[in-house]
Amino acid sequence: MLTGPAGSASVIEHCRRITQFSDEAGGITRTFLSSAMRECLGYFQAWAERIGMVNVHVDVAGNFRAGMPGSGSKKLVIGSHLDSVPNAGPFDGVLGVVMGMVIAESYGDAPGCELEIVGFSEEEGVRFHRPFIGSMAFVSGLGDEVLNLLDDSGVSVAQAIQGFGLNLEQVSKPQMDSADGYLEFHIEQGPVLESLGLPLAVVDAIAGQTRATIEFVGQANHAGTTPMNLRRDALCAAAEWTLFVERTAQQTIGLVATVGSFKVAPDAVNIVPGRAVLSLDVRHSQDAVRNSAFDAAIRRGKEIAARRNVQFRWALRLEQKAVPMNAELTLLIEEAISSTGAKPHRMTSGAGHDAMIVAQHIPSGMIFLRSPGGISHHPDESVLAEDVELALRAGRAFVDNFK
Amino acid sequence: MLTGPAGSASVIEHCRRITQFSDEAGGITRTFLSSAMRECLGYFQAWAERIGMVNVHVDVAGNFRAGMPGSGSKKLVIGSHLDSVPNAGPFDGVLGVVMGMVIAESYGDAPGCELEIVGFSEEEGVRFHRPFIGSMAFVSGLGDEVLNLLDDSGVSVAQAIQGFGLNLEQVSKPQMDSADGYLEFHIEQGPVLESLGLPLAVVDAIAGQTRATIEFVGQANHAGTTPMNLRRDALCAAAEWTLFVERTAQQTIGLVATVGSFKVAPDAVNIVPGRAVLSLDVRHSQDAVRNSAFDAAIRRGKEIAARRNVQFRWALRLEQKAVPMNAELTLLIEEAISSTGAKPHRMTSGAGHDAMIVAQHIPSGMIFLRSPGGISHHPDESVLAEDVELALRAGRAFVDNFK
Repeated sequence: MLTGPAGSASVIEHCRRITQFSDEAGGITRTFLSSAMRECLGYFQAWAERIGMVNVHVDVAGNFRAGMPGSGSKKLVIGSHLDSVPNAGPFDGVLGVVMGMVIAESYGDAPGCELEIVGFSEEEGVRFHRPFIGSMAFVSGLGDEVLNLLDDSGVSVAQAIQGFGLNLEQVSKPQMDSADGYLEFHIEQGPVLESLGLPLAVVDAIAGQTRATIEFVGQANHAGTTPMNLRRDALCAAAEWTLFVERTAQQTIGLVATVGSFKVAPDAVNIVPGRAVLSLDVRHSQDAVRNSAFDAAIRRGKEIAARRNVQFRWALRLEQKAVPMNAELTLLIEEAISSTGAKPHRMTSGAGHDAMIVAQHIPSGMIFLRSPGGISHHPDESVLAEDVELALRAGRAFVDNFK
Repeated sequence: MLTGPAGSASVIEHCRRITQFSDEAGGITRTFLSSAMRECLGYFQAWAERIGMVNVHVDVAGNFRAGMPGSGSKKLVIGSHLDSVPNAGPFDGVLGVVMGMVIAESYGDAPGCELEIVGFSEEEGVRFHRPFIGSMAFVSGLGDEVLNLLDDSGVSVAQAIQGFGLNLEQVSKPQMDSADGYLEFHIEQGPVLESLGLPLAVVDAIAGQTRATIEFVGQANHAGTTPMNLRRDALCAAAEWTLFVERTAQQTIGLVATVGSFKVAPDAVNIVPGRAVLSLDVRHSQDAVRNSAFDAAIRRGKEIAARRNVQFRWALRLEQKAVPMNAELTLLIEEAISSTGAKPHRMTSGAGHDAMIVAQHIPSGMIFLRSPGGISHHPDESVLAEDVELALRAGRAFVDNFK
């Protein structure tokens, strides 16, 4: 069932079937500990029991867990997340769990290593505005800071866990047993593999990230009566800075830098803008490169502001270090991809993934599948059957070599 | 009373007193045919009668009118507007009418030319979202298109005129008799005279104006997973274009060009902007220069869009030709200003004024008074007493030479 088109057809069919479990009709939205999530967990539990997996259960953080004994002494966890963004596509997260299940299912007798398939209950941060609750519970348990977070109805994480019928007692402890490796399949959610004409990538790191709010304050003035040389135009200062940010990223290999939010005031056709407030998002696999690009942006902002006689202010909003994937696993993944005949492109993930949390406790690796059109977090999100087939063969090769 | 500080003190005191006539307590807001406007008109009528002016009345469009016979055959109209923007300052418009009254008052016997002082009832366009209703009625009468305009309560211009107790019968005809010249004093409403350290300017033209809406449409994408070379960033395209617009204006004498409104979508910190919508406002005293700058901006927008693989769209919102002031009057004004010892700076008005409408029927000229801080349309709007004194002396010299 695994090799050939039947395996990939099975993966895609499971993913499509799971779209039925949604918090809202007419689209896919599956949030942490919702009743749609309960149905989704039920789907996986029934599947795991049907194929004879062991220790099938939902842990105290709502993560799906199912084991399969191996002939060797090592243990490999394969997983990703089961929750989604609002109005999501069918593959983000779910694909990684289904891949694990179909790989487990493919073994008639015991695989070379013990397997555990995990479906994390929370990765997107939709319900409690905090991502990675599932993987955090898995590797380190949940502390009060997380348990006391409130959703938009005022329900805490602790109350949600109890309300779901789970036992809060053990929640502060790591929910995983020791393991020797973690493997996550995920759609790329970007255009890189498609632009290269490649099906699969091995992820070398999850990029670190800096976010800041930037403000230029000049002087609002009449657009007709204020000559150019007497203006203190906040928008023009911000435009000049935005292009510097773009140029810096274009000239630095692997760097992405984005001005995503951009507002001016008073925002009227006949008034020179007196204020511009914008966001900066900088990501790179190496913290030193990211920090140096960020510092350069701040320096240039000050220079532009001084030259244009406007004020410059900035405030840090987020600073997250890069998380490298395990070097040994990454090599094993490359070999596994190569064994299928595909070229194992190495790339950095610009988005966060459960592997980022798990990697801090277990040697971890990731395989990206090409995202047609780079589309994700959208109902049109898709995968190609032939890419899924190669990913299954690479996954199976990886498991066979994980001894 | 005119020469020396007493004349300027009188001008400023009248302007300050007139601030009492406001549609709203706690600020100055005086709109077309409001009851505050009725009180304001009463103030001017009483003043004109007190100093023996003739044919004192409010015309069918609500304009204040008062005459003074002259010893010569020519007739000069001096005026500006009596309405205001919401929460206005004390001098915009009113100053020009008060200047005319104080100049008329200064003649013990008949001046060298016949004088008419006019206070236009509507210039700012606040009530009916259409400016210059007063001066249009004065020079050409009001047609149905204007009479049928509705204010925010659904009252038409025609109804407002009748409700004010005015006679609609003659409204389609020009309300003025023939005249040989129109002189308008107005605060500059900009920073030019202050930056030059000069009190007065002679206006050579009211700038023509082009307004357009500009749109760049690229592709919204994930800020973390979309490498720089695969982006179609609408914001960066718009930023590049904004700087081109600024540079063009900086390099073209007398041109002002403003991107005042600037919005991006989705406007989120972690999404590459897929769309940017902005405004363009271009003004110059020569239509050919303005048109050429506008065309260059459109051409460059298309080039930037093509190079960045985004779409470029634009829509014209306003196109208004420049209105030159009368060359002969402008020379007379220069001489009159020079006779006070002040340097007559020549400049283009970037804002519209009643003179723009009147100039199409009567030879017209304008004198700007320095605006401290460039501030206007704001309670802090002011004039300097010494500038008013020079303006009064220049005005008197102008009238004496207008034969």
